[in-house]
Parts: sequence; C-alpha cells; structure tokens
Amino acid sequence: MIRIGIVGYGNIGRGVESAVTAAPDMEIAAVFTRRDPASVSTASGASVRSYDSIAEMKDDIDVLIICGGSATDLPWMTPELAGLCNVIDSFDTHARIPEHFANVDEAAKKSGKVGIISCGWDPGYFSLARIYADAALPDGDSYTFWGRGVSQGHSDAIRRIDGVADARQYTVPIQEAVDRVRNNEHPVFCARDMHLRECYVVAEEGADKEAIEQAIKTMPNYFDEYDTTVTFVTQEELDRDHSGLPHGGSVLRSGRTGNDLEFNNTIEYRLDLDSNPFFTGSILTAAARAAFRMNAEGQCGAKALFDVPPAYLSQHDRSELLAHML
Amino acid sequence: MIRIGIVGYGNIGRGVESAVTAAPDMEIAAVFTRRDPASVSTASGASVRSYDSIAEMKDDIDVLIICGGSATDLPWMTPELAGLCNVIDSFDTHARIPEHFANVDEAAKKSGKVGIISCGWDPGYFSLARIYADAALPDGDSYTFWGRGVSQGHSDAIRRIDGVADARQYTVPIQEAVDRVRNNEHPVFCARDMHLRECYVVAEEGADKEAIEQAIKTMPNYFDEYDTTVTFVTQEELDRDHSGLPHGGSVLRSGRTGNDLEFNNTIEYRLDLDSNPFFTGSILTAAARAAFRMNAEGQCGAKALFDVPPAYLSQHDRSELLAHML
Repeated sequence: MIRIGIVGYGNIGRGVESAVTAAPDMEIAAVFTRRDPASVSTASGASVRSYDSIAEMKDDIDVLIICGGSATDLPWMTPELAGLCNVIDSFDTHARIPEHFANVDEAAKKSGKVGIISCGWDPGYFSLARIYADAALPDGDSYTFWGRGVSQGHSDAIRRIDGVADARQYTVPIQEAVDRVRNNEHPVFCARDMHLRECYVVAEEGADKEAIEQAIKTMPNYFDEYDTTVTFVTQEELDRDHSGLPHGGSVLRSGRTGNDLEFNNTIEYRLDLDSNPFFTGSILTAAARAAFRMNAEGQCGAKALFDVPPAYLSQHDRSELLAHML
Repeated sequence: MIRIGIVGYGNIGRGVESAVTAAPDMEIAAVFTRRDPASVSTASGASVRSYDSIAEMKDDIDVLIICGGSATDLPWMTPELAGLCNVIDSFDTHARIPEHFANVDEAAKKSGKVGIISCGWDPGYFSLARIYADAALPDGDSYTFWGRGVSQGHSDAIRRIDGVADARQYTVPIQEAVDRVRNNEHPVFCARDMHLRECYVVAEEGADKEAIEQAIKTMPNYFDEYDTTVTFVTQEELDRDHSGLPHGGSVLRSGRTGNDLEFNNTIEYRLDLDSNPFFTGSILTAAARAAFRMNAEGQCGAKALFDVPPAYLSQHDRSELLAHML
C-alpha cells in the first residue's frame, strides 16, 4: 500500500481523500493542517495532525499530496516538503511554473525524492492534451476553452467589491468560437471571442446594485476584456442554484498534414465535470502513484506530468494495460 | 538530425515520409521496399533501397519506421528489424499485442535497441486516452466510437465478393449512443447499437446486385452484427466521391467521483482526420523521436506509448514545454 499524506483539507484535500480511499493500492497516513487539528474532522475518519508534525512522520509517508493555494501556499510549501518526502501539487500560476519547478527540483534532488508539480487538469491533463496534439500535428493551432464552470478566482474577486455579500462566477465558452476551430478556420481570437462571464451576485441590503455591476464589468484582467452578465439573486437562490463547483472545457488542435498540407485534422480533448475539486483530487492521487513508482526506481527531482510514462498513473499493471487497454 | 529509415512505401509510408520531411530534427536516410527499388519513386526524392540492404545500412539509421501490415508483415518484420535498429510500428491486431510485444522485446533487448509497437491512433493515441481517463476516473465505463471513416479491412472484404469490382466502406458512429454516454447513462451496448456500416459498391457488369447485397449484410464478423446499408455506384462515382481515406472517432469515459459517487464526469477524446494514413504517419514519426531519445539514455526493449514520457514525443525541448505548454 502506498501511504499518502494529505496536506490541507479544503475542497481539493477532500477530493484527494475520496480518491485515495477508493484506490485499491493506497491508504491515508494522515491529513495535515495548519489549523488546530482538533477543529478538523475528516469524511474518511483519517487522523488529522498539525502541519509541523510532517517532518517527524516522514518515514511513515510515501507521498505527500499538497492541497494548498498557488498564490501563497505552494511556492514555499512544495519545495519545503520536497525536502522530506515525494510530493505532488496542483500549482496553477502558469507564468511562474518554471521558477516553481526549479525550486522544487533543487529541494527534491537534495532529498532524493520526486516532486510532480502542476498535476490538476489545467495545468495537468490539458497540458498533456496540448503536448500530444502538437506532437501529432506540428503544423497547426491549439486552443483552450474553459467551462461552463465556476471560477473561484473570479467569484472571490466579485466578493471583494463593496456591497457584495456573496457571488458565483461562471466561465462560459462561446459555442460559435468552438465551432470555428472545429471547422479548421484557424481563427485568431481575442479574449472576448472565446468566453463569456456570467455572474450571480448577492448584494448587501441597501447596496447600490448599479455601482456593483459597473465595478464588476470594468474590473481589469478579471472582467474588462469579456462580455459579462450580472444577475442579482438572493442568498437563498445562490445557495440553491449555484452551490456546486462544476467545471470543464476543451483543448482543441486544428492541424494540417500532407505533402501540400492538403489534409485538415482536429484533435479535441473535452472534460465535463460535476465537481472540479474532486476530479482534481483524483488526478493528484494518480500522480502520487506515479511519483512513488518513479522514486522507487531511483529517480529524483522535479517532474511535470509530461515527464511521467502514462502507465505509471494507472492502478492496472503493465501486462493488463498491454492486453486490455492498448 | 535523427536519421529515419522508412520500411514500406504504401499509404502509411507516404504519411511518414511527409511528417519526417516536415520535422526540423529529422531526415530520411532511405525508403526500403521489398519491391524492385527502381520501380518506386518517392514524393520527397528520398532514395529507395531494397529491404535486404537494411542490415548493411544500419549504422546510418537511428530509427526504422516499419509501415507494413499487421496481418502478415509486422509479426516477423518488427522483431527481425529490432535486432538491427530502434524500430516503430503500428501493429493493430489487438488480440495479438502481448505476443508481438514479447517477440519485439526479446529481439530489442538482445540488440540493445528500443522498439515501440502499436503507435497509430488506435492502438496508440486512443490507448493513451483510455489509460489517462481510467487513471483519473477509476470508477467508470469507457467507450470507443470509430468514424465516420473508411475501414480498409471492411472495404477489402467487400471487394473479395463475387461480382464486386470495387468498394468503399464507412464505419459510422451512432450519435444517439454517443449522447447516451455523454449523459452518463453508462449504457451497455451491443455492436449494432454503436456503429452503422455504409457500403458503396461498384458491381461488375451483369453481376447479381441482390446477391452481392445479401453477401455483404450477412458476412460474419464484418457485417452481420451491424445495420448495414449498401449503395451501388459507378466506378466514376466511387472515384469522385469516395477516394479519400478520412477517419476519426472518440474515446469516452464516464465516471463518478465523490464520497457517495455523487458527481458525474465525462472525458472525451475526439479525432477528426481528413487522412487516416497521414495522421498515423505523423504519430509514428513522433514515436520515432521518442525511441531515439529513450535509446540514447540507455533504455532498450519493447515499449508501448504508455511507457513513453509525453515530452519525448515533442519537437520542443523540456524548458519550452514547461514555460509554454504546461
């Protein structure tokens, strides 16, 4: 059994807990939290310990799955913990990936452990889809559409506006844009062409709704480059109709083959997820299996999913893959 | 430059030639044929040599891409050539893959070379889609739909019927079946539920068309388990409307996550190809890059694509993948 430590018990931590519990070859060593461990109770009954106890438990853990945030947790936490154990994270600040990779690589090479970073679905499975598609269709264009799904970053941004009690933001791909890519038109899009942003907002009593709507629609980076709709709802409506965390999207590549590039081809990889954090947790869990196997055969240092032979993610052994899944 | 030998110059060989010519890191060493080399002229101007000259040229070749048929060529050819060079094939007789793998493995371990088998899109990229999807959604069901596209095996089977001058068969996925999978209904299908077979047939003068149609529709394994349509056309119509080799299809997995399996998820990997052999040739070419890299770092023996880190297929280096494609 591969012994998994789960670091952080938010939405993704719960997703990992569920996936590890279901995996036939894994067990949870402990959940680690920076909160008071006594204040946390786990769905699986796994024991909860303080973050500071990881070092003393490191010989009882094969892989730590770090379920922290990319903005403030993972940049220091993944390198720190890679000094102790094999680690997995879902670092998703695209622009800072090379720097994060280098930091984890240095720590993991020193400790002789493996650290696989950015193992969610984007970055993660979507990255794999991009790389495989590009390798098969080098002459082409790749496109990523997200949604329809809840963006927690955009929801949080709305909540920080004066007069907003609660909010939920959906990123919505524009079907016409998807269809143009599928038709091999190789379009050049700006942000507004590819996605809409749908906001459901609970205003505080007496708040100026018009001012809130303006503040959302003009917010730099988050909303100003998109067509955005704002719908005011009651807290009850938000809780009833928008409490889930669905997400998904697609990676498309349209590329040409042939001596005169006369053949059009499209590759489409599409996800449709009722729960973003539980799916992310499931991929992190598969990545932990791979980290364990790679370290067991003597590898160390930072890795991305594109460094991992796909078979290492699978709970099935190679002979089964060869006979039944190839 | 990675020096590629192309073994066989049929449709897939031409696809490989085109992909290798376009690749910035590869060149064609030679095309090898069992026909009279003087009778073959290549689109790229690459030199043509006899199959028997491969052994004496082996030090000028980094990877041989073997473009033969799975029924009678590859079972002996891939092991034989793996004794000389790194090799790639597109062996696609699913039931015989473990045996073929073992034969290639033995030869390649003896020669210290790498042989990656079954590198088309099914088996190949579709196998990868199945394995990644199964790793992320272990509790679920996978489905493979083929088409709309030309099945050369089924077209050949029709051509062998008395009174048939020419034929083309399209495999067509049934949209309602695809939709049921996407809707997470986890259906159990028989062959007839998933695909239709559309046949375009040129009858010889005076042939009994009704007998031909009956012979097609009742042919065991090929047609009897499917709803099949037969349309008689002239040779001119067949050449005009059905001369291409388009194909494609989709791998779908519908799986549940959550502590009570309360979340539905679908993963869909879809290909839409104007030319089946040119796309297959393109994947074989990417696999050759991977075989070269794996052998250069000391690996040997038979591999499947699920043994290959995705980055090894890419013409981009790791730092570029990390910065731009993760």
